[in-house]
Amino acid sequence: MALIVQKYGGTSVANPDRIANVANRVAKGWREGNKMVVVLSAMAGETDRLLALAKELADDPDPRELDVLLATGEQVTVSLFSMFLKSQGLSATSLLSHQARIYTDRAYGRARIIGIDTTRIREELKKGRIVTVAGFQGVDEVGDITTLGRGGSDTTAVAVAAALKAELCEIYTDVDGIYTTDPRIYPKARRLARISYDEMLEMASLGAKVLEIRAVGFAKRYRVPLRVRSSFSNHPGTLVCKEDAEMEAIPVSGVAYSRNEARVSITRVPDRPGIAARFFEPVARANIVVDLIIQNTSVDGFTDLTFTVPKGDLAKTLELVKATAREIGAERVLSDENIAKVSIVGVGMRNNAGVASRMFAALASQGINIMMISTSEIKISCVIEDKYTELAVRTLHDAFGLESPPPRRP
Amino acid sequence: MALIVQKYGGTSVANPDRIANVANRVAKGWREGNKMVVVLSAMAGETDRLLALAKELADDPDPRELDVLLATGEQVTVSLFSMFLKSQGLSATSLLSHQARIYTDRAYGRARIIGIDTTRIREELKKGRIVTVAGFQGVDEVGDITTLGRGGSDTTAVAVAAALKAELCEIYTDVDGIYTTDPRIYPKARRLARISYDEMLEMASLGAKVLEIRAVGFAKRYRVPLRVRSSFSNHPGTLVCKEDAEMEAIPVSGVAYSRNEARVSITRVPDRPGIAARFFEPVARANIVVDLIIQNTSVDGFTDLTFTVPKGDLAKTLELVKATAREIGAERVLSDENIAKVSIVGVGMRNNAGVASRMFAALASQGINIMMISTSEIKISCVIEDKYTELAVRTLHDAFGLESPPPRRP
Repeated sequence: MALIVQKYGGTSVANPDRIANVANRVAKGWREGNKMVVVLSAMAGETDRLLALAKELADDPDPRELDVLLATGEQVTVSLFSMFLKSQGLSATSLLSHQARIYTDRAYGRARIIGIDTTRIREELKKGRIVTVAGFQGVDEVGDITTLGRGGSDTTAVAVAAALKAELCEIYTDVDGIYTTDPRIYPKARRLARISYDEMLEMASLGAKVLEIRAVGFAKRYRVPLRVRSSFSNHPGTLVCKEDAEMEAIPVSGVAYSRNEARVSITRVPDRPGIAARFFEPVARANIVVDLIIQNTSVDGFTDLTFTVPKGDLAKTLELVKATAREIGAERVLSDENIAKVSIVGVGMRNNAGVASRMFAALASQGINIMMISTSEIKISCVIEDKYTELAVRTLHDAFGLESPPPRRP
Repeated sequence: MALIVQKYGGTSVANPDRIANVANRVAKGWREGNKMVVVLSAMAGETDRLLALAKELADDPDPRELDVLLATGEQVTVSLFSMFLKSQGLSATSLLSHQARIYTDRAYGRARIIGIDTTRIREELKKGRIVTVAGFQGVDEVGDITTLGRGGSDTTAVAVAAALKAELCEIYTDVDGIYTTDPRIYPKARRLARISYDEMLEMASLGAKVLEIRAVGFAKRYRVPLRVRSSFSNHPGTLVCKEDAEMEAIPVSGVAYSRNEARVSITRVPDRPGIAARFFEPVARANIVVDLIIQNTSVDGFTDLTFTVPKGDLAKTLELVKATAREIGAERVLSDENIAKVSIVGVGMRNNAGVASRMFAALASQGINIMMISTSEIKISCVIEDKYTELAVRTLHDAFGLESPPPRRP
């Protein structure tokens, strides 16, 4: 008998039939003697419907009231879910955030969980009930509703699992686990049985949209074992957990890519101390996240500066950067939206020399030019021409032999 | 400067346009310097949509979970309403029942308000905000959501007005006041400028569906002046208030009717003590409300028993009554669904002899047979054949001169 937290996303509860299907899955776990806490998202499409309603009344809806509105999505799901379980003769109860006591700060629309008082949840579990908790939402210290931002239900699930010291947190979604790369791009992609928190963090932030990145960070911090699996199959999916010797033996676990970024270059920048700050301060103030940055070695007192930003922020970035370029007398500001970032990720990289050179050689063998490089302890990213994305992913997948499962250690 | 509670029903907030229209009305009152508390219902049709969803998952949805589901209807309206006000530069906030602290018992689906802690509402008013409260719902002592039953938003509004000692509670609906009778049946019906709580209670329970009867009872108990008016016009509507000498001078204020009931007769019932209880106890246990009851004078130790029940409960009632009739050896059980109840209501009746005989004579003059009669201090009801309903209403309206406004006392 274990305490298990399960989270089901919007597509898993998209209509009454699917809600019933998911509830039967939960009921099975409960009948096997487990204590079950279920975190639910809004029915797929519901959040967009509510947002459209809001837009009809306000161009820029007030964040506090928007959270009150959006929170109804999960409220509908948890009540429908619990009433189905009860109609099947099971013991169940739904809890909203003020009942489950999920406390957050007051940053409406992107609130952070600051604590969970598990008294009520534990009481309900003690009564033998399946406890259904509305995902994505919390309450601040005066009881006002907040939401955690899109994908926030993952965070709710992990936070609840951490607070309850649950044995396992299962994230049910419409894919059946974490793959070595996107199977739509490379059918040879292999589902991973296990992946470390750190690798998952890199994969999540690099564009593998299966898990909310904050949730993975939370899981890592509180050592909550996460299982990512599909509500449409019985496959056990992928376990996200603490790294171990077996994982460290593999230099590369996966290949990620992102087409979300654009590149900005400033040429012939007078190379004086503080010049980079002059460019990046206004960009940061506009809440634009700069990813890769490269500054060339100075020649004749001038340098070139290149960096990437999300495509949606390119226009604003160019406006800010051009103003600075004029002020300090840089030559030109160029931009390029036809770029992609491909990355290899793996905790084993730390102990494996030559991983980077193998990556560069593999790309070069296909005539793929590398524009920018960025590395972390467990990740190497290359910015390339957009049109080579699929080829690069397949090439790297092959180069590191990701198609075959690693040999199990005795 | 006054403290005013306004309640807007589902048709007044049926879509974003109407919500904006209503919000502008509230904003006007606020700009005039009043403190405004607004109680809102769910958008028209929303409650039915949610009920349909529930029915897809459970034939007989669990009452606790159903309340969690239905409460989202008002939550959507208050958030949209407040975000519109804020987008117009006004100061506003929405409060759900756990924030407005509207405490009820745990009778899900038909909860009763047991108290309101107005601290939070008063704080928000002190900050100069328009406070929007979700109608129809409350929380029990552990913070679980309850609902007050259909029409419960009226009750919320009156209870909040009573708790805040508001100067006025305005109930906005799709009709512009209380009429002497249903204008669809008799176009000569006249809108009343004022009506007493007691008269309104009789009118409400007799089928004038403008105001929730519990709300009127609450208003009477706490002496909250109620104004019933339309959100689609600027007419001041009807004031429901404490009766005064002027009201008492008028014997009849209105004519109500109901086609909702059916008649059950049991013939040749052995007339022994306790025989009526034998029939009515099982009916009461089945939660069926018996309205009029007539027992004829006993002849030869036998009597006839006739009563009315809501049409929707007739089948169940007949089943129960037939069982009893067999047990005690009554002759036959008959039923009739083609009946209607017409009533005259007026606080002035108390001091005016001959009102009943005038009613009977008026009906007789049109050849309308009276099947059953029931009276209270301020009401006389007659059960007649259904087909005469409109004729009876018009005849009584004319007989008591309701078309002309009463002379105002100096």
